[in-house]
Amino acid sequence: MNRIEHIGIAVKDMDISCNLYEKLLGSFCYKKEEVTSEGVLTAFFKTGLNKIELLTPTSAESPIAKFLERKGEGIHHIAFDVADILTEMARLKAEGFVLLNEVPKRGADNKLVCFVHPKSTNGVLVELCQEIR
Amino acid sequence: MNRIEHIGIAVKDMDISCNLYEKLLGSFCYKKEEVTSEGVLTAFFKTGLNKIELLTPTSAESPIAKFLERKGEGIHHIAFDVADILTEMARLKAEGFVLLNEVPKRGADNKLVCFVHPKSTNGVLVELCQEIR
Repeated sequence: MNRIEHIGIAVKDMDISCNLYEKLLGSFCYKKEEVTSEGVLTAFFKTGLNKIELLTPTSAESPIAKFLERKGEGIHHIAFDVADILTEMARLKAEGFVLLNEVPKRGADNKLVCFVHPKSTNGVLVELCQEIR
Repeated sequence: MNRIEHIGIAVKDMDISCNLYEKLLGSFCYKKEEVTSEGVLTAFFKTGLNKIELLTPTSAESPIAKFLERKGEGIHHIAFDVADILTEMARLKAEGFVLLNEVPKRGADNKLVCFVHPKSTNGVLVELCQEIR
């Protein structure tokens, strides 16, 4: 785990929330990207060396749609930058953490990602992400 | 808002969670500090330029005790470093955000802090923090 890459926040209405986070952070949304495999539209903001990622569902089956239904809007995950996702996945598994995907999958923002089950991390959904070079 | 200073995570048992986060982050807890005014024990981990702060209640009236009762363990807040907390509080108020304290208060880790009400930030509890020099 090198550093926090971004914090993911689940929102209901992307336009309203983009406007809100521009005011809150005092910086502009620099990228919007749809990840069709996850059924989400994402929007990114820079804050220092980290990013804030807003996520809104594009389908009712999206994990974000289910999160919003169950918990409402709010922080969805913390993503950590890793140099080698396979090594980090193996290390965490050996330490007893439960991975939500056994093979890295393609996420937003040109990343390979893997999620760690919140039941093994005090209720925090942790994402590992490795930049695709 | 300069950058993410730390992410606060509410936990039930500090010893168990410190051990868990040392394994997860691959780094050691470098400081524990009690904030008696807030009824919390905190523990800090470095991750890049940011920190992870674990929080556990030391009294039943602690906001963290209430959070754990209502929502269980998980991410409690995102804290942003600010150069001048009074200026940033005034800016956010003028933008329509609701502040939880009208005067900065003393937080953990030698900081002046102010919280923004999650109802005005899509369910995210935001902390502003300014280093006390």
